[in-house]
This record gives sequence, C-alpha cells and structure tokens, in this order.
Amino acid sequence: MYPIQFCILGSDEDSNLGVACEDGTGRERTVSEVIQASARRERTRQRLLDAAAEVFAEEGLDAASVEAICERAGFTRGAFYSNFESKDELFFELATRVSNEKLSAVTARLRELEASTDRPTHPAEIVGRLLDFETDDRLGVLILSEIRNHSLRDATLSASYLAWEDAMSARVARVIEDVARSSGLAPRMSADELARLFLMTWESASQRAVMMGLDNEALCAAVSDRMRALAEALVG
Amino acid sequence: MYPIQFCILGSDEDSNLGVACEDGTGRERTVSEVIQASARRERTRQRLLDAAAEVFAEEGLDAASVEAICERAGFTRGAFYSNFESKDELFFELATRVSNEKLSAVTARLRELEASTDRPTHPAEIVGRLLDFETDDRLGVLILSEIRNHSLRDATLSASYLAWEDAMSARVARVIEDVARSSGLAPRMSADELARLFLMTWESASQRAVMMGLDNEALCAAVSDRMRALAEALVG
Repeated sequence: MYPIQFCILGSDEDSNLGVACEDGTGRERTVSEVIQASARRERTRQRLLDAAAEVFAEEGLDAASVEAICERAGFTRGAFYSNFESKDELFFELATRVSNEKLSAVTARLRELEASTDRPTHPAEIVGRLLDFETDDRLGVLILSEIRNHSLRDATLSASYLAWEDAMSARVARVIEDVARSSGLAPRMSADELARLFLMTWESASQRAVMMGLDNEALCAAVSDRMRALAEALVG
Repeated sequence: MYPIQFCILGSDEDSNLGVACEDGTGRERTVSEVIQASARRERTRQRLLDAAAEVFAEEGLDAASVEAICERAGFTRGAFYSNFESKDELFFELATRVSNEKLSAVTARLRELEASTDRPTHPAEIVGRLLDFETDDRLGVLILSEIRNHSLRDATLSASYLAWEDAMSARVARVIEDVARSSGLAPRMSADELARLFLMTWESASQRAVMMGLDNEALCAAVSDRMRALAEALVG
C-alpha cells in the first residue's frame, strides 16, 4: 500500500503489539518493551502532528517546513522521517485527525439519537441534531484547501488526495446509510453521492464562515443551516 | 466601489466613450481619439490577462509575479499598475473571464433550447443539453483553487472573494430561474441555493478530473454526469 494511503486508511502497526520481536541485537524484546516502544512512537507522532498544526495555522503549508515542525516539536529530522515519509504524508494524517474528531462526534450523536425515545423524523431535524456540537473547523478548512491546491499540481499528491477524499466519503456514506436505516427515510441519491454533497457543503459553508471572520459558534451554526437545507431538499 | 468588485461586477469605463474629454494638455480630445485610447487600453488589459494565464498555468500564483507577467506580455510595471490595482485584482479578473466564457456558452445553449421545437422535459436531460460543449476547465479550476486558498488567509482578499462568489452564484441563479420558467419544472431549493450547489459540484467534479489526469473531453463528460445527477435529485 502507498504510505499515505496506509496512514489514511489505518495502519495495522498495533496489531502485533503482543508479539515479542527481535530488536536487532539478537535479543528478543519482551512484550512490555514492545508496548513501551510503540507508545513512545505514538507520542512522537502526536507531538509532530501538534507542532505541524500550530506552525501551519500560523504560517501556511509552504512555511511549515520539516525543519520548522521539528524545531517546534523538539525533535530531530531523523525522528520526523522515522515517523513520516514526507511533509505531505504528515499533512494528510493531520487532515485525517481533524476529520476523525468531527466524524466521531457525529457518530456519537447518532448513537444517542438511536437510543433515544424522542427521535426526530424530519431530515433537517435529524441533521441538526447530528451536528449539534461545537468544534473549531478553521484548521481543517485551511489544511484541506492547501492540500487540494497542491494536489491539483502534483500527480503523486493527487493520487493520495483522491484516495483520501474517497475514504472520507465512504465513512460519511456509512453514517448516511445508518441514518436512513434507523429513520426509514429514503434519500433521492445514493449514499455515496449524498456523502460527497454533504462534504462539499460542509467545506463551502465553513470556508465562507472563515472568510466572513465568524467565530466558532456562528461558523457551526452557518454550516448546520446549509446542511439542514440540503437534507430537507434531498430526502423524501 | 472596491476596485476588485469594480472589475467583477462590470466597469462603466466605456460608457463615456462618446464624450470628448481633456487630455491634460488643455486640448480637448476628439471622440475618435478617446475611442482609440480606450481600445488601446483594452488591448493592454487583455494582453496582460493572457500573459498572466500562461505564467500562472505553468508555475502557479506565487510564481506568477507582476514582473513575470509584464515580461511575458512585453509591458512595463507602469503599464500593469495603470490597468490593475494589484496581482490579486488581475487574477479575479482572469477568473471572471474564464467563468464568463463558460456562462456565455451555457446561456447560448439555453437560448437554442428555448427556440427549439424539440425541448427536453427531464431535469437531467436539460442540464445535459446546457452543458453539451467542450471547454478547457483546467485553468479555471487552478485559478479558483489558488485564489480561494489565499483568501482564506487574507481578510481583504476574502471580502473580494465572497463578493466574486456571490456575483457568480447570482448569475447562475438567473439561468436556473430562466430554465425553471421555460420548462415549468419546480426545483426543491431556492434558485440561489441551487446555483451554489451546481457551482460546487462543477468545481469538485472538475478538480477530481484534473487530479485523475483526464483529458478535456473526459473532464467535461465527468462534470456533466455529476451535474445531471444533481439536477435529477433536486428538481421535481
């Protein structure tokens, strides 16, 4: 698998946590040593991602060089390249982290709705309830815009971008299928096409809100409005 | 009016063509001198726009400096700044020129449809007929992506971007209203909301096609497919 797809679609790195393996010195590592090394590696990755998010938010993708990110995180270039193939791979992973947070929050709302006795029946109301939380979408919007802009000019990056976008659409499509199943509503498009429309609308509404200088609360409200209007028009 | 909005929404520069005015030397210019000066000015603008499109397509917005554009067009920086307030203004005008070409082609198709005795009645078929021409959308997609990316980080530019996007949506909304009137079809959203969805879908489908390395014909076909699916779901 291409390294970036690996990080987008999920790595199986942790699946051999319980297996004692060779450490190169001929001595077998104990299970606890392997777990510690894996946890340390994960902390390094997270610190690099945090640093990248900060530098990027302040200065943009071009200015967020590997050097600048390492300096902010307090790591060497060696540590960077033992964790990420390239700056592009790191930014795809950062975009994935931001999107995962958003999708997890939506999924948590969906489980609450399904368990509730007071379930909404109108498409707009369902979408409103699923999006009724506040996140800071500014970083996600900026990263996506920069990555896409670069991908339009770079064939290697564009393959990764398309894989990333397809993976995101597929995850949103599964949420839509869950909602359709539990609500009994019938969308007027396939779940995949609907997912792409919802993602586009989320991004376009967020971008406009960022450009209008709206604060977080107003940004989330603007996005929710557009998403509810879309649901109302496209379902039933 | 802000200079960029001026160029987006149309300048009234030519409306005083027939008026003889002072040329600064105290001598009144003749009508024919004014017309010649205005035509010369227009040729200069067009040559600068052509040069900007070339340099931008080859190297991107950042590399397409005012110097590089002037060198390509064979003009001085003075000529540039007597025509455009900034590089940003020039790129908004370039985006407008590309969009105008596209919108003019759609409008021409609409007039043909309205005059025809064999008028399609299904939403997808109508949209397919309106988009049944081939243009090179690559430049437009790249410019929009770069301008938007810059606007997300620059408050002055973002105001211009929002004005630009609103003006484009309003023009597409008028086409949608015309189609709805002449076809008797009833969209499930307001013309303005529909216009934004069509513009987003056009851009997203074009971007994917560019990233997939599709040629012009395949790009136009991919865009038309997505637009027809959208029309089918959102009308009637």
